[in-house]
Amino acid sequence: MPTQPLIDPGEVRFFSGSSNRPLAAAMARSLNLQLEDTLITRFSNDNLYIQLGASVRSRVVFIVQSLTPPVNDHLMELLMMIDIARSAAAREIHAVIPYFSFARSDKKDAPRISITGRLVADLIERAGATHVMTMTLHSPQVHGFFSVPTDPLTARFLFTRYFRKRDLSHTIVVAPDSGGAKSTARFANSLKLPNAYGNKERLSDSQVRIADLMGHSIRGYKRAIIYDDEIATGGSVVELCRILVAGGVEEIWVSCTHGVFAGPAFERLASVPQITEIVTTDTVNIPEEKRPKNLHILSVAPIFGDAIRRNYFRMSIGGLFDFGQDEKT
Amino acid sequence: MPTQPLIDPGEVRFFSGSSNRPLAAAMARSLNLQLEDTLITRFSNDNLYIQLGASVRSRVVFIVQSLTPPVNDHLMELLMMIDIARSAAAREIHAVIPYFSFARSDKKDAPRISITGRLVADLIERAGATHVMTMTLHSPQVHGFFSVPTDPLTARFLFTRYFRKRDLSHTIVVAPDSGGAKSTARFANSLKLPNAYGNKERLSDSQVRIADLMGHSIRGYKRAIIYDDEIATGGSVVELCRILVAGGVEEIWVSCTHGVFAGPAFERLASVPQITEIVTTDTVNIPEEKRPKNLHILSVAPIFGDAIRRNYFRMSIGGLFDFGQDEKT
Amino acid sequence: MPTQPLIDPGEVRFFSGSSNRPLAAAMARSLNLQLEDTLITRFSNDNLYIQLGASVRSRVVFIVQSLTPPVNDHLMELLMMIDIARSAAAREIHAVIPYFSFARSDKKDAPRISITGRLVADLIERAGATHVMTMTLHSPQVHGFFSVPTDPLTARFLFTRYFRKRDLSHTIVVAPDSGGAKSTARFANSLKLPNAYGNKERLSDSQVRIADLMGHSIRGYKRAIIYDDEIATGGSVVELCRILVAGGVEEIWVSCTHGVFAGPAFERLASVPQITEIVTTDTVNIPEEKRPKNLHILSVAPIFGDAIRRNYFRMSIGGLFDFGQDEKT
Amino acid sequence: MPTQPLIDPGEVRFFSGSSNRPLAAAMARSLNLQLEDTLITRFSNDNLYIQLGASVRSRVVFIVQSLTPPVNDHLMELLMMIDIARSAAAREIHAVIPYFSFARSDKKDAPRISITGRLVADLIERAGATHVMTMTLHSPQVHGFFSVPTDPLTARFLFTRYFRKRDLSHTIVVAPDSGGAKSTARFANSLKLPNAYGNKERLSDSQVRIADLMGHSIRGYKRAIIYDDEIATGGSVVELCRILVAGGVEEIWVSCTHGVFAGPAFERLASVPQITEIVTTDTVNIPEEKRPKNLHILSVAPIFGDAIRRNYFRMSIGGLFDFGQDEKT
Amino acid sequence: MPTQPLIDPGEVRFFSGSSNRPLAAAMARSLNLQLEDTLITRFSNDNLYIQLGASVRSRVVFIVQSLTPPVNDHLMELLMMIDIARSAAAREIHAVIPYFSFARSDKKDAPRISITGRLVADLIERAGATHVMTMTLHSPQVHGFFSVPTDPLTARFLFTRYFRKRDLSHTIVVAPDSGGAKSTARFANSLKLPNAYGNKERLSDSQVRIADLMGHSIRGYKRAIIYDDEIATGGSVVELCRILVAGGVEEIWVSCTHGVFAGPAFERLASVPQITEIVTTDTVNIPEEKRPKNLHILSVAPIFGDAIRRNYFRMSIGGLFDFGQDEKT
Amino acid sequence: MPTQPLIDPGEVRFFSGSSNRPLAAAMARSLNLQLEDTLITRFSNDNLYIQLGASVRSRVVFIVQSLTPPVNDHLMELLMMIDIARSAAAREIHAVIPYFSFARSDKKDAPRISITGRLVADLIERAGATHVMTMTLHSPQVHGFFSVPTDPLTARFLFTRYFRKRDLSHTIVVAPDSGGAKSTARFANSLKLPNAYGNKERLSDSQVRIADLMGHSIRGYKRAIIYDDEIATGGSVVELCRILVAGGVEEIWVSCTHGVFAGPAFERLASVPQITEIVTTDTVNIPEEKRPKNLHILSVAPIFGDAIRRNYFRMSIGGLFDFGQDEKT
Repeated sequence: MPTQPLIDPGEVRFFSGSSNRPLAAAMARSLNLQLEDTLITRFSNDNLYIQLGASVRSRVVFIVQSLTPPVNDHLMELLMMIDIARSAAAREIHAVIPYFSFARSDKKDAPRISITGRLVADLIERAGATHVMTMTLHSPQVHGFFSVPTDPLTARFLFTRYFRKRDLSHTIVVAPDSGGAKSTARFANSLKLPNAYGNKERLSDSQVRIADLMGHSIRGYKRAIIYDDEIATGGSVVELCRILVAGGVEEIWVSCTHGVFAGPAFERLASVPQITEIVTTDTVNIPEEKRPKNLHILSVAPIFGDAIRRNYFRMSIGGLFDFGQDEKT
Repeated sequence: MPTQPLIDPGEVRFFSGSSNRPLAAAMARSLNLQLEDTLITRFSNDNLYIQLGASVRSRVVFIVQSLTPPVNDHLMELLMMIDIARSAAAREIHAVIPYFSFARSDKKDAPRISITGRLVADLIERAGATHVMTMTLHSPQVHGFFSVPTDPLTARFLFTRYFRKRDLSHTIVVAPDSGGAKSTARFANSLKLPNAYGNKERLSDSQVRIADLMGHSIRGYKRAIIYDDEIATGGSVVELCRILVAGGVEEIWVSCTHGVFAGPAFERLASVPQITEIVTTDTVNIPEEKRPKNLHILSVAPIFGDAIRRNYFRMSIGGLFDFGQDEKT
Repeated sequence: MPTQPLIDPGEVRFFSGSSNRPLAAAMARSLNLQLEDTLITRFSNDNLYIQLGASVRSRVVFIVQSLTPPVNDHLMELLMMIDIARSAAAREIHAVIPYFSFARSDKKDAPRISITGRLVADLIERAGATHVMTMTLHSPQVHGFFSVPTDPLTARFLFTRYFRKRDLSHTIVVAPDSGGAKSTARFANSLKLPNAYGNKERLSDSQVRIADLMGHSIRGYKRAIIYDDEIATGGSVVELCRILVAGGVEEIWVSCTHGVFAGPAFERLASVPQITEIVTTDTVNIPEEKRPKNLHILSVAPIFGDAIRRNYFRMSIGGLFDFGQDEKT
Repeated sequence: MPTQPLIDPGEVRFFSGSSNRPLAAAMARSLNLQLEDTLITRFSNDNLYIQLGASVRSRVVFIVQSLTPPVNDHLMELLMMIDIARSAAAREIHAVIPYFSFARSDKKDAPRISITGRLVADLIERAGATHVMTMTLHSPQVHGFFSVPTDPLTARFLFTRYFRKRDLSHTIVVAPDSGGAKSTARFANSLKLPNAYGNKERLSDSQVRIADLMGHSIRGYKRAIIYDDEIATGGSVVELCRILVAGGVEEIWVSCTHGVFAGPAFERLASVPQITEIVTTDTVNIPEEKRPKNLHILSVAPIFGDAIRRNYFRMSIGGLFDFGQDEKT
Repeated sequence: MPTQPLIDPGEVRFFSGSSNRPLAAAMARSLNLQLEDTLITRFSNDNLYIQLGASVRSRVVFIVQSLTPPVNDHLMELLMMIDIARSAAAREIHAVIPYFSFARSDKKDAPRISITGRLVADLIERAGATHVMTMTLHSPQVHGFFSVPTDPLTARFLFTRYFRKRDLSHTIVVAPDSGGAKSTARFANSLKLPNAYGNKERLSDSQVRIADLMGHSIRGYKRAIIYDDEIATGGSVVELCRILVAGGVEEIWVSCTHGVFAGPAFERLASVPQITEIVTTDTVNIPEEKRPKNLHILSVAPIFGDAIRRNYFRMSIGGLFDFGQDEKT
Repeated sequence: MPTQPLIDPGEVRFFSGSSNRPLAAAMARSLNLQLEDTLITRFSNDNLYIQLGASVRSRVVFIVQSLTPPVNDHLMELLMMIDIARSAAAREIHAVIPYFSFARSDKKDAPRISITGRLVADLIERAGATHVMTMTLHSPQVHGFFSVPTDPLTARFLFTRYFRKRDLSHTIVVAPDSGGAKSTARFANSLKLPNAYGNKERLSDSQVRIADLMGHSIRGYKRAIIYDDEIATGGSVVELCRILVAGGVEEIWVSCTHGVFAGPAFERLASVPQITEIVTTDTVNIPEEKRPKNLHILSVAPIFGDAIRRNYFRMSIGGLFDFGQDEKT
């Protein structure tokens, strides 16, 4: 894409919190911009001390931070960086949040709990962000929690491009539950494959049970692509694999946008011999030493880079957008 | 319940917009309160002129308004009544919105559209409401659109109580789509009946296609209770009936919380001979002359009355609350 | 005016609600800009569904909407269009409201009513407008209801230019009441004509009584130009004509900025044989089929176009401005 | 009125700025409340230092301040006193502003000036007032400038009661201009007298010209009551007297709500021998030594006291309210 | 104090975050109130999940949380608990923050850093707190960072009462730097002892150098009480001890309000043999197993309890208040 | 500095309130910009009437106003000018406040007083300022009172440059109290001189007592430069001179940033024969006729001009910034 216009480096400042510097650096590279330094230390009383390493006066500022564990530290870094840019008279402040983990808390399913997704959206606005860019929110309604303009992007076509090069004979795409059925159907359509999804019941935050599959029958399929928005402990995936294997599937490719892989997740997945590959993106940074050999990481940097450039040059970014379409639409 | 404490009539003022006065009157009666007059006329240039009929100074004010057609007129009535109470120094302003129709616009599934549910929540706050009471929002996340404390109530147990008295042999509960599956399952459990739901695809705002049923097989069932949150044109229900009848169901009871029954809805339902009864609530006011003979209306007035009294006396209203629980919880 | 600078079409987006598309199109033409599409439909539950037809990202957006009947629908359209532009990251959002009908509700002349002009100004700000352009507010103080910068323009010189070409011998300019006396005097001065005004008493929203005339005596005048800001039912004008005819006037030209002409207005005016011409502007859209033959419509499109261009190029628009000057100034 | 309920002194705190302590003290007396001390001094750099003399924690606080000259000092006192009460956790903060002088700046009648009435209303809200009580605003629309509940009271019936005891034969009530015509008519009606008003033209802030009178003819009347909302320099009154005397009036009683009497006002009035009495209220404090012998002051303390008590006990105060009714209503 | 009024337990709800439950429990006990349960767990993606254990509807809610390490987790707990109470319609929400560690970030002493004290004050307001109670802020100006009413209490008289019982012959009170000189002087006066303070220079966040002492000469004193607002790493204290010992002091009592004692603090203090006792309060919770034998902890629970009761019963709390008085006052 | 870029005069508008027009004019000259007219008069009721003399539409507007006596008039002028610019659609509004006198009220050192510095910062934001530029705030924490980006500049190097040209043998720099010690030390270091400061105790707003000096001993020094942020009545300086002269100093140069010189200040300073020169800046305008002969005024116009230009061209202004560094940093 050598003919695309370049952002004037004098106009923007690109910063990263500590949650995912490799991704921020890759975004900056894709835009031919410099990733500015950010000094992040702590006072002896545990308070964060942050200094942005370049003047932001009247500049368009981008702050990249994924809300990965430790989430509260990363959130506070983000709020402070936004506050610094605001009080130093930045012209625009774009909070780039590849993984907005608080989207999971999107409703009151018990008394006296917090819709934390809304609370955090309010805090980000209060700190001074003028625009938010994020990816694949847990539910499309979370978009409505933000008071500032917000662009939820999608990584779906990264997966399409990746799997299109593979042998897709006798292959079916499967979502762990009905919540992901629509998104999975779009993905399957892009590969011209059939799709199904699990009849999942959540027993606790980390335990689920899948009774059977719905949608297209898996009978006769030898290969399955599991497609999900986020994998935390891997419990749903392993439970789904149990059903798939029982149904005759011999090879399973696991894919998800947000690869949290918390606690024993990789071990659990490794315990299923039919899983030959795990494909995720870099919205969550996975340290090199933790990555299993069969893990393949697709970078979302070009997507965010493209969205940032289009936003900067005022082109529509509808093509990169994750239009929330669910069961009831 | 003769021993329940009574609200001091000197402390509160109860008003109704023009959308559903019978329901407001019933709520007031259930609380032993007077429904105050509200004068609503129009200037010759079509601007609304509204006058509240009783002093609200330092009072706890309740304003009942369902956002039924004509929705924009009814919304403007609500905003003006809130504004009047606010500027006349009411102490608390409770917007009681039995049917919050704007909850349907809860996400961006196309570029450059409005998440109108959030917009209207903001307008209601701006006008001056300090608390919102509503019922069965289209999706549980809409709760997070409101900045003021908001109580989404449920009418589910009205239906349970109603159907429990009937012959429920050979009966299955069915939702038109997976979005309502969880809620329907809870309802079915309360009746100790099995449940299933349609594999629905929306072709347009008023046209849908249901390919097949999921969950429990309907084979062998003679009777079905269709359970939905809202029926507008009746298209989904008729489409679902087609599948049910093809599957051997001989009698169908249609039930929904919000009976909008727009346009040809009643005619459509009447065209399905297996539908012997339609059960809905009075969140939407249906004029006497439009009601088909097999329509049975359950009043939500006692539920709102109970919530108002509990709120007034600072008792928990968790028991009346619709905790949003969906596929991904 | 071929030497005026042209607005870069890439910088702005021009939209119209459904209340007055012909005027919006004329404004766009006067600026050499394209009027973008706006899709406005309704869900089956009567909720509006609106989609703007062009990307607004970082653009200067103009949204034209007259608050004419049905006013609540047109207000909601305006609020939703502003909200869409805001959440899609428009840089500036100019609400162009040629006829702000809510200005009539500008004070509390009874207990427990709403100063709706202020409420609507607040709602427009809450939805996200950054600037308002309007014309001839009912009272100049309404300007102070708006929190965002607001430009009230005037159409007076359109009328001056129009009548200047006519035979103005034996002609006097008359306002229906003292509220319009100052504005009428300025208009009369620009035509070098004397002026008078009615001693009006309002009996109800649509009924008035004019006892006599004040200011210049009409004795000896054969022709009168009635000049008002708004004509709704035409009651005041007909009552004024009665006095004028009794005083010897033989020909009457009726003129007003906002031609609402509600209900029987045209019939009433037609019942006065001395009225040979009605002159108004297009701030309110009058369908072709409703227009009487003696109705002449002056377009305000060039005035708004000029103000928009001056605003865009940061020239003063004081010359187009309606500086509120009333009795007590 | 010995049977009226008394406000619990433990619930409220009553303070006064330095502009009109006698009126504040009279209000407190009429309510059987203590006027608390307020220490107001200045730092050597001219900054005000204010300390409220009694704890306000969780109390209902009243702060009385007329915005009389020096207006900016008095405004800053008011804002600081509100701020102190707010930050010391007062439960309610009532700003009692008998004379809101900034209401004169209620519109833009020239480019690049301030609608200062709105600005000051915003500042009062920002400082923390939760309610405003004031009297006879310059125009009724100014009510709409306030975001917090606001009660504009009227002193009209004080004047009615006062003049009713006098010989009113051959007497007419006259307003200096049409802006006050409606209010004057109501006053005249209450005395069963005819009324007229001046055809006034403002030449500058302090110079006016009255060409003739409108409304009822003054022919044959020997006595006139001039009735106005505010007298500043007295220019309009003197000009009106010229017309009245020329028309045969032999005795003039001058009355106004807000007696600013700035600069040479009293001398000017003294130069008209027909003026035998000047009647005003104490919304503006006039030092004893400046008062001419024929000045009679009616206290508004009972009106504010009554409104405060009614507000406290949640009775309607509509009867004390100045419902804005002007020419166009 | 058996005659003090008791708070009605039905009116309030008392909760604690996880930072200092023992202190919260002691506060509750001192008020005869129950400390309600709070469930605090984490989702597998590290997001906090919090549920308040008792209905807060229309109640006065107290939430106790010290912002001790891990500060960001504890801050997020606090914000979520406030948000829960707000959205569940609590009447008042009092954030009780015994140690507001962010007060250290109170100014910009380098470019592009955050005045985090102000940011956090804003976040607490945004979440919904209506009142803040805290103790001994790092600088008195931090009080001005809060938009909601805020009460900074002092623990000074706890120390006075404690040391008054001891042998205070040949004793001097010493502050590590001039910033604490005024507060130390007040403390010394209450014990009728002389005072001095160190001439401190900060080399880094954890390293300081004290050149000499100012104020009263320590010559001839055998015993010193070091008095500081907060001890983090203990560096300043150890450096001060070096000077004191060199000046002839033989016994040192170290006292501070906020005993953070981070990292090697206790070891450092133990390395100074002249330190025979360390006295602090329980604003920061120190686990039993970490406490050295010579550590004495004074509880601030009665102070907060007293302030809460006085606030509840609307008594002045000026006596408990830490009036910020520094060098320039 | 002929090669520096010039601000496009078409982009900005430069205005001044009445407090310090000479400084505003000098700033404008240093930027090659025109100082626009501002009409400031008063209505007869003492209300200010202000008109900006040039169109501000979409312009970058600077408003220069020092908050010098009469401070409340000057504050109101500033608020009104900001409001005018805001409502006339200025793009940016920079409040340039060389002397922010309200910074003195920065904490609560007594019950029921106002932290007026915070209140005024809030009022300035509410009126519509988008950026504040000021100089040497009384305490660095006051920076945190402002919600909009704020740049506190320093004049220190003006003094350095001025005194560097003088004979500095046997010279010591002295601050009146410890509050100014750090700033004085930085200034002394820039001149390579030793420094000391007074042990000051404030007896009242205008009376202080200095017991002795701290820091470097003054023994043997013949000349002293007193360095302070603000001189109001001169009391501290005269008291300090007493100590200096007693210690053998023979010549004293008095310097301060904000030369308020209220009341008898100049006379007091004249009574100390050792004071041979007084050096201050023009942040406070001192009328020609009041200036003693030995007063030397350094203009801060180039500093503000430089900061404005750097801000305009988005260069860092860190070099001009007064980073608050006090005892505890």
